[in-house]
Amino acid sequence: MTRIAFLGLGDIGTPMAAHLADAFELTVWNRTPAKATAFAGAHKATVAPTAAEAVRGAAVVCTCLSTSVDVESVVASAVSALGPEVVWVDFTSGDPATSQRIAARLAAIGVPFIDAPVSGGTSGAQQGTLTLMLGGDPIVIERVRPVLEAVGKKIVHCGPIGAGDAVKAVNNALLAINLWSAGEGLAALKKAGVPSAVALDVINASSGRSNATMTLIPERVVSRAFPRTFRLALLDKDVGIAAQVARDQKVPSPLLQLAAELMRLAHATLGESADHAEMVKVIERWAGVEIT
Amino acid sequence: MTRIAFLGLGDIGTPMAAHLADAFELTVWNRTPAKATAFAGAHKATVAPTAAEAVRGAAVVCTCLSTSVDVESVVASAVSALGPEVVWVDFTSGDPATSQRIAARLAAIGVPFIDAPVSGGTSGAQQGTLTLMLGGDPIVIERVRPVLEAVGKKIVHCGPIGAGDAVKAVNNALLAINLWSAGEGLAALKKAGVPSAVALDVINASSGRSNATMTLIPERVVSRAFPRTFRLALLDKDVGIAAQVARDQKVPSPLLQLAAELMRLAHATLGESADHAEMVKVIERWAGVEIT
Amino acid sequence: MTRIAFLGLGDIGTPMAAHLADAFELTVWNRTPAKATAFAGAHKATVAPTAAEAVRGAAVVCTCLSTSVDVESVVASAVSALGPEVVWVDFTSGDPATSQRIAARLAAIGVPFIDAPVSGGTSGAQQGTLTLMLGGDPIVIERVRPVLEAVGKKIVHCGPIGAGDAVKAVNNALLAINLWSAGEGLAALKKAGVPSAVALDVINASSGRSNATMTLIPERVVSRAFPRTFRLALLDKDVGIAAQVARDQKVPSPLLQLAAELMRLAHATLGESADHAEMVKVIERWAGVEIT
Amino acid sequence: MTRIAFLGLGDIGTPMAAHLADAFELTVWNRTPAKATAFAGAHKATVAPTAAEAVRGAAVVCTCLSTSVDVESVVASAVSALGPEVVWVDFTSGDPATSQRIAARLAAIGVPFIDAPVSGGTSGAQQGTLTLMLGGDPIVIERVRPVLEAVGKKIVHCGPIGAGDAVKAVNNALLAINLWSAGEGLAALKKAGVPSAVALDVINASSGRSNATMTLIPERVVSRAFPRTFRLALLDKDVGIAAQVARDQKVPSPLLQLAAELMRLAHATLGESADHAEMVKVIERWAGVEIT
Repeated sequence: MTRIAFLGLGDIGTPMAAHLADAFELTVWNRTPAKATAFAGAHKATVAPTAAEAVRGAAVVCTCLSTSVDVESVVASAVSALGPEVVWVDFTSGDPATSQRIAARLAAIGVPFIDAPVSGGTSGAQQGTLTLMLGGDPIVIERVRPVLEAVGKKIVHCGPIGAGDAVKAVNNALLAINLWSAGEGLAALKKAGVPSAVALDVINASSGRSNATMTLIPERVVSRAFPRTFRLALLDKDVGIAAQVARDQKVPSPLLQLAAELMRLAHATLGESADHAEMVKVIERWAGVEIT
Repeated sequence: MTRIAFLGLGDIGTPMAAHLADAFELTVWNRTPAKATAFAGAHKATVAPTAAEAVRGAAVVCTCLSTSVDVESVVASAVSALGPEVVWVDFTSGDPATSQRIAARLAAIGVPFIDAPVSGGTSGAQQGTLTLMLGGDPIVIERVRPVLEAVGKKIVHCGPIGAGDAVKAVNNALLAINLWSAGEGLAALKKAGVPSAVALDVINASSGRSNATMTLIPERVVSRAFPRTFRLALLDKDVGIAAQVARDQKVPSPLLQLAAELMRLAHATLGESADHAEMVKVIERWAGVEIT
Repeated sequence: MTRIAFLGLGDIGTPMAAHLADAFELTVWNRTPAKATAFAGAHKATVAPTAAEAVRGAAVVCTCLSTSVDVESVVASAVSALGPEVVWVDFTSGDPATSQRIAARLAAIGVPFIDAPVSGGTSGAQQGTLTLMLGGDPIVIERVRPVLEAVGKKIVHCGPIGAGDAVKAVNNALLAINLWSAGEGLAALKKAGVPSAVALDVINASSGRSNATMTLIPERVVSRAFPRTFRLALLDKDVGIAAQVARDQKVPSPLLQLAAELMRLAHATLGESADHAEMVKVIERWAGVEIT
Repeated sequence: MTRIAFLGLGDIGTPMAAHLADAFELTVWNRTPAKATAFAGAHKATVAPTAAEAVRGAAVVCTCLSTSVDVESVVASAVSALGPEVVWVDFTSGDPATSQRIAARLAAIGVPFIDAPVSGGTSGAQQGTLTLMLGGDPIVIERVRPVLEAVGKKIVHCGPIGAGDAVKAVNNALLAINLWSAGEGLAALKKAGVPSAVALDVINASSGRSNATMTLIPERVVSRAFPRTFRLALLDKDVGIAAQVARDQKVPSPLLQLAAELMRLAHATLGESADHAEMVKVIERWAGVEIT
């Protein structure tokens, strides 16, 4: 049976690795070892003491870390232990430029790399219904398809290396823009005498609707629930990546760039632990009104 | 049977008036008389030579014009002919400040006014499935409910006079923002090697989806069909109204205000006849790429 | 000797009225009567108990209030007492639309109006060296030239009624933009290891210099002095007027509109008493750095 | 006498090299050899056939190229010919990240690097009155001070490597913002009936004045002269660098980022040869008015 190394047991990585443990021979590694030990207690998996030990002999190496820079550093520490037939699959929400740099480094020793960021959140990861956005060589993707199908439901080849990262970042930037702009509009309507639930009732039957107005704002903002499922700090990072992609591609993108600044200031204002939907609290403070 | 006056037989007003002709005694008036004559040839309706003649003896006066300023001017020309029990229902996508001024003028002679802009486009108007957003006194709204139900399916009381206008404007501003920002993102992805259909496939299964990405962009932009159903010039007007509402309510609203400028410059660049979805052509020209 | 009525003894109005007291027969009025009484104790002037009493028999009525809406309300209370040969000169930093509405109301009874906002601050007002920006009929301006020359040094006819207001608002908007953008740049440089005084030394010898970098930032920000001479709340109002002028004139103006939002949020964040130069504190908080 | 290598004989580099030819033993190289030959015909200098030949035996290597990426490529081609005691001085308007990468590469072989972008334009370069903004080790700067003083008048040490680039980029970004925002304001005023010369007369006596309103707009825009002295394409590059510095330093910077987009779209609209002051033509087209 194919041996898989999985590096990075965070909120998304852990349930993904759990699916892989059911189907493959799995070795796990995590920067904080306690998480790896706990994982091996709950699933059929071996714990490796270092990233290098984890990847030794693996047919597929999977990473799911916070940033591409983290991946780059793990690659550096593990590269000498990689076997000749291995493929590196990176599920991190990364940035295209760093992914391309990593891919070039691995290509120099004959190891193919694909960027494969996911969407669907922790619940999608648990249910194995993630969407996977892939960048890299289609032939390589075919070689690891069983691994991809074990964790994701919708698997889309987006383009060359970095394309998966780019699509993920743009998706998240659109989420940020749709959410923030709805926050501005709903705050203004509330001050003009329109309850947010009434405004959403209309908007969600009309042309301005989005995932933000149909799901996030009713369930998290108007309800004041603000569950913490996806940190604003990470969304800030993603919107920054999308803004960088647009800059690198020389696409004038005033909304995208302004959104990156709004995420930056919301992140600075609300701190590291705030959920992404809490961004609207910045508008609420400025405007002196609650979106309810 | 109740007599209705309908003033303004444009793309939306004409099918709305047609529904009213089936259920009420209808008098129509249009600035360009030929449209009124054609309407009376096709439906059970009387043509009035002036707005004043049209409203004389009507129980309900309906307007569906381009702007609130047009409504204000029609009110001025017809006010002396209004009967004592009449209600004025304005289906125009208006602006709250002008609607409030009109309402104050009519209130001075005892005539109640409600703003009732619609969404759903020409097809919704034809099928009688429009969404109506109402601003004004709920008691007055009850008095005209049969008229509202003859043209709309979803009827939502949003708040005081101008609230309907404000909600409609914010909905359309969100449409504009969702569409333009998706255009920026898709242009950048295309230049990075991701076909727009592939990017949309992912986004529409993920958190960044909106009516713009699910409907408008696939059907109108990627297909290069660009049908002309809702003019950019009108969307520019609506986003300007939403921006004004946010300013008047002292809600800091950087995305909304920037969007108003983008609509203004797209309108100036593409001219009066462009459809709203054509706004992405401005991004395409700047970026030197097609969103396909 | 010509009799002048001066309505509004604020920080700018008081020293202006003092110059007029030296040259004309002066009647003063202020909403808070104590200020008028104190003024009459220090200068040759009569106190009027109401705005209407103040304007009765005056050849020139001067207003210097917070907003055009305040002027409109004073006009309403005093209009019936205006004599046949009077001219109304408004030194308020007003908005063109309201000035035009006031002018139309006064024109209906044969009273000419000019908008005449000033720049130069309290020290310019004390020294009689203000710049006056005039909107209105040049023939009317000639009739009141002795009054204008008593308070201002540079007197510029800008155009029709409202043109003075518009120029003043745009000047202040440029001040706001030049100051805020320098704040962004200096904060970034500081974090990159460049002391603000060093950066300003270069910029003020180069093409990026402005009144903001040459005067305001060294004297108020880098020094941490932040004297309170011109409230951010008033600058917020002025930038809002400039943004409205650009909207009304259909000039796509992304920087101006974004600046209006930044002033709005800085005003909301820093409160009513903050000086305009304190706006950079918002950037400093977001960035976690001092511009020093 | 010290031998200097000067690489890059463009509009700014040529007059700088001419000053160096008067004081030092000079070897020049240019990508297009004809320019080097012409230079050696007019000044006391030797032409080198390659960058490597030029730097061989030089005590100081000077570069003045279009971008830091160009410098990086020249360094790669010449690095093996560098002597042990050489210092590399880069007059390019570079970007800090690339300068730091170049410096690290040179440091590895013991060669110190300083970034030394200049301001003052071609006339400042001809007259030897440039301002030099320096990033790097102060001890190294002292070693090359005679070279710096031969070309510049105001020599400012800004901070660590890249600090010179950063200050230059921020200065140019402020220029771009001051100019564009004045363009927006003047276009709106013109449409409101205020001639631009009148508005500038007031602004330049008031708080909104800047180098853009005092020099550039009167001399280039209102006059319609639009001389081509500094290409918009290069200013676009510089504003992009400033925006990147602010992003890298995590300073929320909405005006700076929006300005980068406006430069990008103006550059795309007006082409490669447009002068930077021509950016206002984009506003003029959108607004349908001339700033005169």
